[in-house]
Amino acid sequence: MITTVDARELGIDRPVLMLDKQRCLRNIRRMADKASKQGLSLRPHFKTHQSLELGRWFRDCGCERITVSSLPMAEYFAGDGWSDITVAFPYNLGQASQVAALARRIDLKLLVSSPVGAADLAASITTGVEVFIELDVGHGRTGIAWDDYAGQQRALDTLAAKPSITFLGFLTHAGHSYRYSVGQLPGLNSEVLARLATVRQRWQPQWPQLLISSGDTPCSTVCDDFAGIDEIRPGNYAFFDMQQASHEVCKPSDIAVALIAPVVAVYPQRQAAAIWGGAVHLSKDLYSDSEGHTVYGALCPLAADGSWGEPLKDLRLSALSQEHGMISADKPEALDGLREGQLLAVLPAHSCLTADLMGSYCLPDGTWLDMLTSTKPR
Amino acid sequence: MITTVDARELGIDRPVLMLDKQRCLRNIRRMADKASKQGLSLRPHFKTHQSLELGRWFRDCGCERITVSSLPMAEYFAGDGWSDITVAFPYNLGQASQVAALARRIDLKLLVSSPVGAADLAASITTGVEVFIELDVGHGRTGIAWDDYAGQQRALDTLAAKPSITFLGFLTHAGHSYRYSVGQLPGLNSEVLARLATVRQRWQPQWPQLLISSGDTPCSTVCDDFAGIDEIRPGNYAFFDMQQASHEVCKPSDIAVALIAPVVAVYPQRQAAAIWGGAVHLSKDLYSDSEGHTVYGALCPLAADGSWGEPLKDLRLSALSQEHGMISADKPEALDGLREGQLLAVLPAHSCLTADLMGSYCLPDGTWLDMLTSTKPR
Repeated sequence: MITTVDARELGIDRPVLMLDKQRCLRNIRRMADKASKQGLSLRPHFKTHQSLELGRWFRDCGCERITVSSLPMAEYFAGDGWSDITVAFPYNLGQASQVAALARRIDLKLLVSSPVGAADLAASITTGVEVFIELDVGHGRTGIAWDDYAGQQRALDTLAAKPSITFLGFLTHAGHSYRYSVGQLPGLNSEVLARLATVRQRWQPQWPQLLISSGDTPCSTVCDDFAGIDEIRPGNYAFFDMQQASHEVCKPSDIAVALIAPVVAVYPQRQAAAIWGGAVHLSKDLYSDSEGHTVYGALCPLAADGSWGEPLKDLRLSALSQEHGMISADKPEALDGLREGQLLAVLPAHSCLTADLMGSYCLPDGTWLDMLTSTKPR
Repeated sequence: MITTVDARELGIDRPVLMLDKQRCLRNIRRMADKASKQGLSLRPHFKTHQSLELGRWFRDCGCERITVSSLPMAEYFAGDGWSDITVAFPYNLGQASQVAALARRIDLKLLVSSPVGAADLAASITTGVEVFIELDVGHGRTGIAWDDYAGQQRALDTLAAKPSITFLGFLTHAGHSYRYSVGQLPGLNSEVLARLATVRQRWQPQWPQLLISSGDTPCSTVCDDFAGIDEIRPGNYAFFDMQQASHEVCKPSDIAVALIAPVVAVYPQRQAAAIWGGAVHLSKDLYSDSEGHTVYGALCPLAADGSWGEPLKDLRLSALSQEHGMISADKPEALDGLREGQLLAVLPAHSCLTADLMGSYCLPDGTWLDMLTSTKPR
C-alpha cells in the first residue's frame, strides 16, 4: 500500500529536484575525511552539482581546489572565489583567449590529451598555465595510452619547451569503473594503480615533482588502496544515484537528490501509471535492476516534510518520453494507494545529468539553489 | 578526407545548436500543404522547438492552433498571442488553479487520460475548458484503451455532468510509430485508423460533433490515408532527426538542426576522436545505424558559412559522457583531415531532446533564438 503525499498539500505543482542537504553534507564529509586519512589531496568534480551554494558546502568542509568539465564552468566557480581549478576536459583550441583571461585571474590547470593537443596548447597560450597530461588507463575515452611512452614523450617535450607552461604530472579518469559492481572495483583499482605506477617509474627520474591525479567516485568510495596517487577527483559521490546503488557502491539511502514528480494517470488493469517526469527532467540514462530490467529511476514515497522513503517494491520507472515517465508494476497490488494528484520521488539513474537538466535545487524548506544551467521553470 | 571548418574561423568556441532556417521552413510548409490538401486540421506540437520565434514561422504558414506538452509551455506560447492550445499531456490535478487562470485567457484544450482523471478535472475546475479523452491505440503509454468502452463511458459521463466542461472528442498519440521503419508505417497507420473508426462508430450517435485527433510525425509524414481523422498533431517534422532518418521517414538532408561541436582530440591509432558535445548537449537518446551499431548522432562536415554537408562515411558518434562525445572510425583513413580545433556538425538522434538541452538556436548569420528552457551559456 503506497502512502505518498498529495501535490496540493506540499504546494509542488510540477517536477522539481529536491535536495536532501543532510545526506549531501554527509557524503561530502565522508569523502573529505577519507581523503584526509589517506593523505590524499581531494579535488572534487563540481560538474555533478554545478551550484555555487553547494560549492560553499564543500568549502566549509575544508575543500580549496576543484575540478570542472568546461571553461564556462571554471569561469562560473572562479566568480565565487575558487582560485585553484582543474578543467578536466581536453584543451579546446577555440577557447585560447578565454583560457588566457581566466589563467590571469586564478590558478588554472588544464589537460592535454594527445601530443597534438600539447602542441596546440603550446602554440596558442602565452599566459602562465599549469598542465596535466591526460592518460587513458583503460577507459578508452580521452588521453594518451598509459603505455604509449613515445606519445607521452612528444607531449612532454612540447610542454617543456614552452616557458609559460608548467607541467604538473599525469591525470586519468578510470571511468570504466562506472560499469563495475562493488566486488569488481578493487581489482580494477589495482590494475589502474599498477599502470599509473609504471608511468611514474618511467618519468619520475626526469620529473621528480610529478603528480598523479586519478579517482572516480566508484573507486574513491569503495577502495582503500591509493598507493602512488597524489590527488583524487570524484564528483558524483556528493549526490550518488541509482547507477551507483545498483552496483552497491552506495545505498539508496545515501542518494541526496530526487526528482519530485506528480502522478498524472494510474492504470491498475494494465499495471501501469504515469508521472510528469520524463527525459527532459531525468535524462535518458538508465541502469539494470536486480532482475535485469532496464530502469530510469527508483520510485519512492514522499512525505509532507519533503523527505522521501526507501524505493517502493515491485514498481519500476520503465520508460521515458519527453515529459512522461511510465511506471510498470510487477503485480496489480503494487499500485494500491497510488492516485492521480499525488507526488512520487524518483531517485535518478544518473544524478549529474538530472541535475544539469533541472537547473536548480529545491530544499524541503522551500529554498531554491541556482546552478550554472539554471533554466526558466518548466 | 574530411574537410571541415576551424572553430576560430567561424568564431564558435563551444557547442551550439545551429538551425537551418530554410530546411525548417521547408519542413513546416510541406506538412502544412499536406494537411491542407487532405482537409485535415494541423495542430503542430511545439514541444519540439519550444521557441516563440519558430512559432511565428508556423503562424506565417497559416497555423492558428498548436499543441504543447505542459502547462508552462502553454503559458509561454499564450504570451505570444497563441489563443488555441491543446496541452497533450494528462491533466495534472496539482495545477488546477493555473489551468483555470490560463483557460480564462485563451481557448485551452485539456486531456483526461483515465476515468479518474476525468473525475479529478470535473471536481477541480470551474472555468470553462474543452476536453479530449485520451485513447491508447497501441502505444501503451497513457490513455484509456481504445476498446475499453466501459472506461470511456465513465469518463464521458463524468465530463457530461459538468456544465463548464465541453467534450471535444478523442485524442491519441500512436507513438509506437517511432519504432517502425518507413515500410511498416502504412500498416500501423491502418491499424490505428481502424481502431479509431470503431471508437467513432461507438460514440458518434451520442456525440455527433466529436473530433478525432491523432497524427505523430512518422505517420503524418509517410502515410496518405487519414480517413476518419479530423486533426493531426505532428511536431518533430519541423526539425526531423537521425532516428527518423534511420527509419527512412526523412532524409539526412531534411534535418534542420545540428549540434556544432569542437573537435578536442584525435586518436588515429585507435581510430577514435573526441568532440565537446556530450549528454548535456545531445541527450542520451540513440538509434541503430544500418550496420546495427548504437549511435548518438551523425557526424557531418561544417562549412565556413555555417551550413553542413552529408554525414561522413565510416564515422560514428559511438559514446557520450557528460561533456565528451566519442567518435569511432571504422577504418583509420576515415579520420584523415580531422584535427583538434575544427568543428563538426552532429545531426541529433532525437532533435526534441537536444533542443530542450541546448536552450537556444544559433542561425548562421549569428542571430540567436531563445526558447522556453533557455539556459546560460554552457
